[in-house]
Amino acid sequence: MPDLNDATRGRVLYGGDYNPEQWPESVWHDDIRLMRRAGVTTVTVGVFSWARLEPRPGARDFDWLDRVLDLLHEGGIEVCLATPTASPPPWMGSRHPETLPRDESGTVVWYGSRNQFCASSPVYRDHALRITEDLADRYGGHPGLRMWHVGNEYGTHCWCDETARHFRRWLRTRYGGLDALNEAWGTAFWSQRYDSWEEIIPPRRAQYLINPGQALDFRRFTSDALLECFTAERDALAARTPHIPVTTNFHPLFIGQDGWAWAAEEDVVSVDLYPDPKDPHAAAYGALVQDLTRSQAGGPWVLMEQAAGPVNWRGVNHPKPHGLMRLWSLQAVARGADAVCFFQWRQSRQGGEKFHSGMVPHAGEHSRTFARVGELGAELRELAPVVGTDVPARAAILHDWHSWWATVQDGRPSSLVSCERLLRAWHQALWERNLTTDFAHPHADLTDYALVAVPQLYLLTDEALDNLAAYVRGGGTLVCGFFTGVADEDDRVRPGGVDRRLRGLLGIRTVHEWWPLDEGEALTAEGAWLGAFHGTLWSEDLEPSTAEPVARIKGGELDGRPAVIRNAYGTGTAWYVSTLPEPTALRALLGRAAEEAGLAPALPGLPEGVEAVWRGPYLFLLNHGRTPAVVPLPSAPSGRTDLLTGRAHHTSVRLDRFAVMVLAPPESLA
Amino acid sequence: MPDLNDATRGRVLYGGDYNPEQWPESVWHDDIRLMRRAGVTTVTVGVFSWARLEPRPGARDFDWLDRVLDLLHEGGIEVCLATPTASPPPWMGSRHPETLPRDESGTVVWYGSRNQFCASSPVYRDHALRITEDLADRYGGHPGLRMWHVGNEYGTHCWCDETARHFRRWLRTRYGGLDALNEAWGTAFWSQRYDSWEEIIPPRRAQYLINPGQALDFRRFTSDALLECFTAERDALAARTPHIPVTTNFHPLFIGQDGWAWAAEEDVVSVDLYPDPKDPHAAAYGALVQDLTRSQAGGPWVLMEQAAGPVNWRGVNHPKPHGLMRLWSLQAVARGADAVCFFQWRQSRQGGEKFHSGMVPHAGEHSRTFARVGELGAELRELAPVVGTDVPARAAILHDWHSWWATVQDGRPSSLVSCERLLRAWHQALWERNLTTDFAHPHADLTDYALVAVPQLYLLTDEALDNLAAYVRGGGTLVCGFFTGVADEDDRVRPGGVDRRLRGLLGIRTVHEWWPLDEGEALTAEGAWLGAFHGTLWSEDLEPSTAEPVARIKGGELDGRPAVIRNAYGTGTAWYVSTLPEPTALRALLGRAAEEAGLAPALPGLPEGVEAVWRGPYLFLLNHGRTPAVVPLPSAPSGRTDLLTGRAHHTSVRLDRFAVMVLAPPESLA
Amino acid sequence: MPDLNDATRGRVLYGGDYNPEQWPESVWHDDIRLMRRAGVTTVTVGVFSWARLEPRPGARDFDWLDRVLDLLHEGGIEVCLATPTASPPPWMGSRHPETLPRDESGTVVWYGSRNQFCASSPVYRDHALRITEDLADRYGGHPGLRMWHVGNEYGTHCWCDETARHFRRWLRTRYGGLDALNEAWGTAFWSQRYDSWEEIIPPRRAQYLINPGQALDFRRFTSDALLECFTAERDALAARTPHIPVTTNFHPLFIGQDGWAWAAEEDVVSVDLYPDPKDPHAAAYGALVQDLTRSQAGGPWVLMEQAAGPVNWRGVNHPKPHGLMRLWSLQAVARGADAVCFFQWRQSRQGGEKFHSGMVPHAGEHSRTFARVGELGAELRELAPVVGTDVPARAAILHDWHSWWATVQDGRPSSLVSCERLLRAWHQALWERNLTTDFAHPHADLTDYALVAVPQLYLLTDEALDNLAAYVRGGGTLVCGFFTGVADEDDRVRPGGVDRRLRGLLGIRTVHEWWPLDEGEALTAEGAWLGAFHGTLWSEDLEPSTAEPVARIKGGELDGRPAVIRNAYGTGTAWYVSTLPEPTALRALLGRAAEEAGLAPALPGLPEGVEAVWRGPYLFLLNHGRTPAVVPLPSAPSGRTDLLTGRAHHTSVRLDRFAVMVLAPPESLA
Repeated sequence: MPDLNDATRGRVLYGGDYNPEQWPESVWHDDIRLMRRAGVTTVTVGVFSWARLEPRPGARDFDWLDRVLDLLHEGGIEVCLATPTASPPPWMGSRHPETLPRDESGTVVWYGSRNQFCASSPVYRDHALRITEDLADRYGGHPGLRMWHVGNEYGTHCWCDETARHFRRWLRTRYGGLDALNEAWGTAFWSQRYDSWEEIIPPRRAQYLINPGQALDFRRFTSDALLECFTAERDALAARTPHIPVTTNFHPLFIGQDGWAWAAEEDVVSVDLYPDPKDPHAAAYGALVQDLTRSQAGGPWVLMEQAAGPVNWRGVNHPKPHGLMRLWSLQAVARGADAVCFFQWRQSRQGGEKFHSGMVPHAGEHSRTFARVGELGAELRELAPVVGTDVPARAAILHDWHSWWATVQDGRPSSLVSCERLLRAWHQALWERNLTTDFAHPHADLTDYALVAVPQLYLLTDEALDNLAAYVRGGGTLVCGFFTGVADEDDRVRPGGVDRRLRGLLGIRTVHEWWPLDEGEALTAEGAWLGAFHGTLWSEDLEPSTAEPVARIKGGELDGRPAVIRNAYGTGTAWYVSTLPEPTALRALLGRAAEEAGLAPALPGLPEGVEAVWRGPYLFLLNHGRTPAVVPLPSAPSGRTDLLTGRAHHTSVRLDRFAVMVLAPPESLA
Repeated sequence: MPDLNDATRGRVLYGGDYNPEQWPESVWHDDIRLMRRAGVTTVTVGVFSWARLEPRPGARDFDWLDRVLDLLHEGGIEVCLATPTASPPPWMGSRHPETLPRDESGTVVWYGSRNQFCASSPVYRDHALRITEDLADRYGGHPGLRMWHVGNEYGTHCWCDETARHFRRWLRTRYGGLDALNEAWGTAFWSQRYDSWEEIIPPRRAQYLINPGQALDFRRFTSDALLECFTAERDALAARTPHIPVTTNFHPLFIGQDGWAWAAEEDVVSVDLYPDPKDPHAAAYGALVQDLTRSQAGGPWVLMEQAAGPVNWRGVNHPKPHGLMRLWSLQAVARGADAVCFFQWRQSRQGGEKFHSGMVPHAGEHSRTFARVGELGAELRELAPVVGTDVPARAAILHDWHSWWATVQDGRPSSLVSCERLLRAWHQALWERNLTTDFAHPHADLTDYALVAVPQLYLLTDEALDNLAAYVRGGGTLVCGFFTGVADEDDRVRPGGVDRRLRGLLGIRTVHEWWPLDEGEALTAEGAWLGAFHGTLWSEDLEPSTAEPVARIKGGELDGRPAVIRNAYGTGTAWYVSTLPEPTALRALLGRAAEEAGLAPALPGLPEGVEAVWRGPYLFLLNHGRTPAVVPLPSAPSGRTDLLTGRAHHTSVRLDRFAVMVLAPPESLA
Repeated sequence: MPDLNDATRGRVLYGGDYNPEQWPESVWHDDIRLMRRAGVTTVTVGVFSWARLEPRPGARDFDWLDRVLDLLHEGGIEVCLATPTASPPPWMGSRHPETLPRDESGTVVWYGSRNQFCASSPVYRDHALRITEDLADRYGGHPGLRMWHVGNEYGTHCWCDETARHFRRWLRTRYGGLDALNEAWGTAFWSQRYDSWEEIIPPRRAQYLINPGQALDFRRFTSDALLECFTAERDALAARTPHIPVTTNFHPLFIGQDGWAWAAEEDVVSVDLYPDPKDPHAAAYGALVQDLTRSQAGGPWVLMEQAAGPVNWRGVNHPKPHGLMRLWSLQAVARGADAVCFFQWRQSRQGGEKFHSGMVPHAGEHSRTFARVGELGAELRELAPVVGTDVPARAAILHDWHSWWATVQDGRPSSLVSCERLLRAWHQALWERNLTTDFAHPHADLTDYALVAVPQLYLLTDEALDNLAAYVRGGGTLVCGFFTGVADEDDRVRPGGVDRRLRGLLGIRTVHEWWPLDEGEALTAEGAWLGAFHGTLWSEDLEPSTAEPVARIKGGELDGRPAVIRNAYGTGTAWYVSTLPEPTALRALLGRAAEEAGLAPALPGLPEGVEAVWRGPYLFLLNHGRTPAVVPLPSAPSGRTDLLTGRAHHTSVRLDRFAVMVLAPPESLA
């Protein structure tokens, strides 16, 4: 199977979405001239071209695309060619209204925007496959073609009758018989027992709480139904161009697709990433998405979309202060990206995203933005040695979309507890300690990790529980957050309050009751080396068995109960954290657990705000702070060379605001 | 007609909703063992069993229920058997989509949750009646049967076409002819005159303010339509088991059902009560619901549902600190409950409410929760002498659902003014003074009450106005809140601004204008013995005639206008309060009015946080505070005995946090 | 063509909406008695009488209206007769459901309120026209008829299929062919190209951002569709009564109608105005609406609706403190109103607006409110000399509904930036400087204005850009706010970031990036004579060319960039303001620009809170403050006479709280 190396060929790919159909042909020549000037290697063409390629059902208008691809090829620009199936033309919704999605209330989601297709619609699927096949037949042999890009940010949900039929077929496959389904969904509750398959529907607008099993399976089904759309197109492409890798771009940290299942179907994993420049935790968020994407890819990956400046879909859309676009681009490379791309090449003058920045902004080639785009292109060329190298990580955060899905339903102990919030808090704590972190599925082989963190996995399968126990028993260090392992695969609460295996692993006798905290409420806890700290979101009336208390709650109804415990299990150690400690405490706690597990940060003695990541033998240093920082370097008699400048550095380096260095290993100086 | 005594037979009923269909039969035996251990007397079975009892249209699967009832009976546990009609099986919505409710916008409310039936649907009604008849035929003679429980928390609204036809029939009955309807609804306004019955629809989604008469009548109709569902089932049961009382459980302080009309149709009145453990006014709220329910029942009543710990439908669901479940259970008994029950017996492992606590929680029989459940069961056995006794009250709050309904529409002087908020504020003031309070309909005979409070009755019929005037004329004391008596039965503003009768009764010349206050805005008022206090929500440019000012507004546009007035009328006194005084002032004001009316608190000299209620000859003392309190006892030479402990107490008692005593009368010591 | 003079005939019209069908005929006589007492000259009859006039399709019941008009005429009260077409009778929605509007989601908007018609429905239009013709035929010659009032506050939007067909016809007219439409809407973006007219729909509920061209054109279309309804009725009336002026009443500052296009079709321009008495900026808001209405009318206008006391559609509805109703009524006259009317004459006892105050309130003729109404009527008689005179203004604010429409779509740089907010802020600054201000269309002849302000015109046509440049070139002073001129008529971003013409006019080289500010965020700027001030909402990385900086940003990423610039262009001056300065700074800035342009306030040395306006030779002085103010008068040897009191004033006058004087010119004393 082809992979990202077939597209990179030793270079960091650089480019963006190119939508020539928005412009007269006269502009195309200018585009290619500017792409060359900016160091663009690769552009993604045709993501939203369906109405242009197939102006009416069955018609084909490919000539303009022939010309675009030939022009690009002549200009030395390679192509990631998209199937245009994310946005069907108006004729599809108009002639085949049953292809339009319906929401939970049965309201039709019309065309006039994008993404208006029902993933279960055979009409949509059929048209999508045919245009994909024709594109592959026509351009599969084009010399500029380097990658296929299928669809775009899959994520449309639908509750229509066609979806209902498809959902039933999916459920039949999953459960075989109705009895198993009734059992898994617990339909004995509230008189929900299904007597025939025809009765089953998506979880539509209802009076009160929806059956959780139905809701969970509908999310599973929707992810799978969308994945079928992807794999059908992928198969059509792979059959015709077995040597060209296929990708589709993920939304970052998106709940709608099972990221592990999807990544397994892609030759190349790619993601879109748009941190808010005003968000003080934007860099940490970026690192999380990058680590997750790398983990999904199992190696290098593609940053398919980012913004040269502001986006246009926030309430207030902030531009990027000078240096930030470069900093975040290089952060992606540091964390495994072998491609740095933008939405979009030339900023639109019309349409829904005309205020989303582009590599060539409205102000044109003499703008500051375009100048910065060109500078980045030049720098990325210097990073060719980095391409294909790994980002070693000995810490892992476990994440599972199925568990996430189960926790977003109503009727939970606290609606304030969010999987995303906990993932971000825990990952940020590790990131601030410069502990490079992978993400892993709860069934994954964890033996190579010194530290495994579980911010929250409400739903844990038997296999996952056994996996965690085996990992710790074999010497691993596990740090586990609250409300973990509560339910089995069917969102059925495990008997006894806390599962038997978890009780042993974590050294807990029982959790008498959960005491979720209100918005703005905080507990105080105190531990010997942790000192006093606040905890939010959650607390528990926790009774340990073998575990030793690390910190205890002070005051309130739970005065004296342990907030953090630590349990020796087998030859390893398991920690349990029954609240969300404030950032410094969570950092201290995970830092201590890492230290005890023999895990050191990427670089010792880093000043705050500076990120250090090793990629292969290369040390990336990124100053996210707004003030200069001095970073002591690991000893190397002959110093290290910054790939970006060619300058050698010895005992320490000074990084200005938003500065980046990529230091080559000492031996490369020789 | 049977009543609650037929079920209690001299005991406080103790138990909860029991849903054996959620569990394998092996668990049932364990359930009965634990029920016995917990002192359970009675369980409610079958509330959500329809899909199990009638797995497909017309089928019957009763064998399992035979076994359950026999097992319970053998175990000495009595049964409140439910008709399962609150939650139709999926086949009903699937085969008869017209049974599904539609909201104001016409959106279908689907199955997959519960309560998805249109009360006007003949198909639903027919199926509901048939399963009810079959249950009554089969189990009417079962020796364990003590009570029927019909439906559950009726309250589903529907705006569908079938509902429209039913609404029209209801309106024909109410008005006879269209002219009367047009007159009552004031359809001359905004060109809304109806020319034929077929034109009339429920108040669906519209451009702007809905006709208030239509909106009010639709609420009346909906309450009646649901009540028809109830009475149809009740009649079927009563015809078969004339000796078994029938109940249905109310939501607490629920707007959707006319509580007076419904209670009149029940043999036993029952309610579900779930105060938020974090709400600082939870105990006052509980007392209100209990007083209201007792007043609806005209005597002892059933606490049908409460929670052993947290619920799961709030944003953040708090458990009950140690002692609170017991305290609130005994508060219900103090205020007239002869049954203390929970939702549900065994906490579910699946379904929408699996995080709602149960008497047997996930952690099982060795949990703290179950231990507390057992302790309470034992204590309730000691309270048998209390069963059937009355709670004497010489104060009453007038409440009327029709008035409430009229005030929740848009287009009122202030959307901040809420009937519930005023009821709670006024009841709490009386409760904090330990003035035991009934609720009464505005048409009720008030002669036995020393004090009648009207927090707000916007809509007052002629009969009610006459009733109030007669009450005061005959020597009663009335305290009346603002925006009372503004409209007649049809929500037609009474001529002259303030009704002639009210002007005389309250000693008001006119109210020139209402000056509602903004959120966060407060006026200052001052009175001789009231001192200075703040008022919120409302103020008025009030001009008294015969009334004397009790307090006047200080500052602002209304400087000097009276805020509180007092009028001698006949041989009685009428007070009028034109703002919502802050809690201490409202307490002082109502306390003074009570004092002048010769009404003393349940016990003099009570410390704050301690509630005292007389039930028959028994004195309940409940410490809602978190610190111990010392309560002076009414003199009794030989002391009083606490039924719960058997200990005698003399001049005073000490009540720890959340402690309760039930002191028997002195003579019972003899 | 007839105009307002045909109705006023030298008097200030005084009256309100009169809805006799809400009352028994016995009340009518009383109404006329009270109208005479109150000085009412004119009432508007029949606005919501359709169901009464046409109780079933085709029927006519006009007798009652004959009697009403005759009674009024006998009583000396003139009539503004309304077509009743704002609120179709229930039979129309019931028999012709396709006349009911549907919202973006396809939800039907039912009858039971008002305004439930689809402007594109031929059935509605046909019925509306026929009742209009019949009214005109019957009453066109009635001696009491002085004006026609068509519909009421047009503004209903609809997204139904009939609307879709109508929208397509409108688009065909606008664009001729589909290619032009595709080009104008930029449908190349997101695969939205239309292949046939039948595919085009209104912008219905969609997945994400709607096509901006479609959204803008749909607003244009809706305004036009409603206008067609108006003009069809107007034409029917004008054909029958060419001498009677026709009006329809606008909502104040309403986005839904193109105010310039609509005003051009009316003989008389009228508006409804309901400032919140609690709004501290209510008087400024009133002045804005009055200035805008006068500008639409090109002279005197009609205040068709205001409230004698509180309205009933706010969350909390405040009455008017003593004097405020008079003050605001006279403010309208000061700013050009020749008619002061209310909704409604007699406060309803039923229906959706029974808590909206009336001239005759529930409390009746002896109420304070009615007394004040009568006092105002008497005073307005004294203002007859003012009728028909002009309000001279040498400053203008440019406003265009098309630009407003383009800015309310999602996907803009900042959702906090609102056209209305900017209009209000800028107008208020001028109003506080007592610079009387017109509003003008961007294509209007501006030569007579000394100062032209553009708070924000995002969308500017070529013609408008040329017009602005010519105005300044010829010596005008332009003050221009941020985010102006960004797009052309099709909401297509003009090339180069800032349009070439604007660059020259404003002396800007380029705007590198917009830096919109968050809610609560403020920048600090400083200028030589402006001093330090805060700016909110917006900032820019602005690079001037020929313009001189007036103030610069201090601190932050944009430290040192100009916030306000000033450019000499031709013989005039253009200012550009790249943020929203705090009120005092905006006032100072516009005041300085006016001063440099030779524009003086209406009166020098006015104390804060006092408004001065010249209307013809009459000087209106209004004290909006709650404390007395002393106002120095312009020198006039023999003094000036207050038309309201007949008293002469010389060097200065004292105005109590809410006081008003209307000072006649000195020569009129002779």
